[in-house]
Amino acid sequence: MMFNNHNVQISPKAAIGKNVRIGDNTIIFDNVIIEENTTIAHNCIIGEPLNEYYSNKDYTNPTTIIGHNSLIRSHTIIYAGNKLERNVTTGHRVTLRENNTVGYHTVIGTLSDIQGNVTIGHYCRLYSNVHIAQFSTIGNFIFIYPYVVLTNDPYPPSYDLKGAKISDYTQIGAHCTILSGIHVGNNCLLGANSVINKNVPDYSLVMGNPAKLIMDIRKYIIPGKGKLYPWMYRYSRNMPWEETDYESWLQQHNPESPKL
Amino acid sequence: MMFNNHNVQISPKAAIGKNVRIGDNTIIFDNVIIEENTTIAHNCIIGEPLNEYYSNKDYTNPTTIIGHNSLIRSHTIIYAGNKLERNVTTGHRVTLRENNTVGYHTVIGTLSDIQGNVTIGHYCRLYSNVHIAQFSTIGNFIFIYPYVVLTNDPYPPSYDLKGAKISDYTQIGAHCTILSGIHVGNNCLLGANSVINKNVPDYSLVMGNPAKLIMDIRKYIIPGKGKLYPWMYRYSRNMPWEETDYESWLQQHNPESPKL
Amino acid sequence: MMFNNHNVQISPKAAIGKNVRIGDNTIIFDNVIIEENTTIAHNCIIGEPLNEYYSNKDYTNPTTIIGHNSLIRSHTIIYAGNKLERNVTTGHRVTLRENNTVGYHTVIGTLSDIQGNVTIGHYCRLYSNVHIAQFSTIGNFIFIYPYVVLTNDPYPPSYDLKGAKISDYTQIGAHCTILSGIHVGNNCLLGANSVINKNVPDYSLVMGNPAKLIMDIRKYIIPGKGKLYPWMYRYSRNMPWEETDYESWLQQHNPESPKL
Repeated sequence: MMFNNHNVQISPKAAIGKNVRIGDNTIIFDNVIIEENTTIAHNCIIGEPLNEYYSNKDYTNPTTIIGHNSLIRSHTIIYAGNKLERNVTTGHRVTLRENNTVGYHTVIGTLSDIQGNVTIGHYCRLYSNVHIAQFSTIGNFIFIYPYVVLTNDPYPPSYDLKGAKISDYTQIGAHCTILSGIHVGNNCLLGANSVINKNVPDYSLVMGNPAKLIMDIRKYIIPGKGKLYPWMYRYSRNMPWEETDYESWLQQHNPESPKL
Repeated sequence: MMFNNHNVQISPKAAIGKNVRIGDNTIIFDNVIIEENTTIAHNCIIGEPLNEYYSNKDYTNPTTIIGHNSLIRSHTIIYAGNKLERNVTTGHRVTLRENNTVGYHTVIGTLSDIQGNVTIGHYCRLYSNVHIAQFSTIGNFIFIYPYVVLTNDPYPPSYDLKGAKISDYTQIGAHCTILSGIHVGNNCLLGANSVINKNVPDYSLVMGNPAKLIMDIRKYIIPGKGKLYPWMYRYSRNMPWEETDYESWLQQHNPESPKL
Repeated sequence: MMFNNHNVQISPKAAIGKNVRIGDNTIIFDNVIIEENTTIAHNCIIGEPLNEYYSNKDYTNPTTIIGHNSLIRSHTIIYAGNKLERNVTTGHRVTLRENNTVGYHTVIGTLSDIQGNVTIGHYCRLYSNVHIAQFSTIGNFIFIYPYVVLTNDPYPPSYDLKGAKISDYTQIGAHCTILSGIHVGNNCLLGANSVINKNVPDYSLVMGNPAKLIMDIRKYIIPGKGKLYPWMYRYSRNMPWEETDYESWLQQHNPESPKL
């Protein structure tokens, strides 16, 4: 039903793996590598040339890699120089500017805008319309909810751009703003619409504008639900511990890791 | 000028009504019904297959209905399983995930992202870039201003997703966040950038993070303007009482309804 | 690599200047003027007809001008009636509704949505996903960061729409909301996620919901960095004083202007 090879344009310098499907009206530019079993849906642009293309006659498009078993949904634009590992999924109308790396099994939601030179780890889930400024670092198993903005300029406009850094397992509520250079620790929960202007220690529940520490997240209990965080003991959908449990998975992968 | 039938793809299993116009580069998938006098503009995707399509060889696309006299603006993506009643209008780049119902004469603005399994009533007006999480319920005559986010997860990430419910005639200011499971009553006004973390009674003016009750909206008076709310007594553009007045229209349609 | 004239549609009533490049799948409607050396990338719609087109058989598309040396990135939609001066750049998926004017050397970022009848001056920089309501006025040398919303309705829904007005050199932090009719002075800095509900005097640093005056921006000093604002004395990238300095440039262009 979907893949009819209609008005598809693929550069002769692109490398397309086995069982790759490419949607109608999609354009694949030079030096794009699409690994096997990956689907690129309709109206996408993959390997969009960098700004330099417009001024440099000798421009060569940097290599772009879309890992195997990935799904790039329609109207997505991925610039040259991105490296997406295997099993990455995007929503619709995602924009990935140049030179990001995206880890395996990460999902980047509809309308999200990754500004370039960003590192995103594995098993992250960015929901719709997340904006990540250049030079940000996102660890692993991080969930970022809609309309979150990570910024990178400490006193705008400046030349001292510095991204934020988010550590593993953290949850960032809808509409949060994280200021330039901030480090958010692991296993945190940032309440909706918070402005994060100071570093956040591991296991913190914070909220407000500016955000304040509410409590150690390990003490956050809802009557009848018990202890909710760290969340990995109660939630496993699409996580690598889905078939087992978090503790077993952790010990198997990193036997030295302390118990949480 | 606009409709030249250029690079249009229509499934033989789609049903296209009389006087329907379909824009260039638009794709209409299986089991889409487009009723008469409706316009689908350029670069749209209507009846986008669900996730299941990618894994199930026997996949059948659920029925999608775009009611008569509707206008779907360019770059809009509507998944299979949506039911849009008559006279629905979308802006550009709207995304409707699967199984929403949208009532007659409702407008969904540019970039809005309706996440699926959402019910939206009639004569609503969602402005640009409104995000509605799955399982939300929006009543009738509701105005939602830009960058509002309705969420659905009470302690993320969880399996207990629960949408918010918004009752009739309510106005939701720009950049508001409404938390999972919240019920906002009818005839409310939520100030810009509020975070709604508790139920809001009918006729409330609330604002802040977290939102606080400011007053009964019926007591909100601007000198020289008089009583402003309920707004239906002073505003009728594109409303069903445009040719008469709200009171007359209400009595005609629901003679038992109490006077406000 | 990029421009192959593939599935391009250009109205015979459009005027295309010398050395203009038009991307694949792009549509140029009637009465669009694209001046020399301008690039329109892929999947764009330029000169989109106004609403009236759908109901008026005698509709004539208003003139649209894209000035010389401009770059309109892919998936951008520009309505008829826009006037863009020279050297304007847009990001991807920008929407310009009708009758805006955009000054020279201004950049409008990815996903930004300019609602129509908006005036934007020269050398402005709107970052990603900025929403400007109808009838807003943006001066010159203004930087607006991601997810800022300018609104225009003082008591929604109303007929008394009134845009905000932003004066020269001002910096508007990410996620700010500026309410209808507000005047923000020149050389201000609005902190991230602020709600601006009162006029802001020149040289103010404000933040919060609602925003409060923190200090005169000229007194804002970071140890080791010194005086940061006005910013024009320390930042010149892509500004007209890039080859000289702000003071010299200012005296040359406006010798009567007082020293800041």
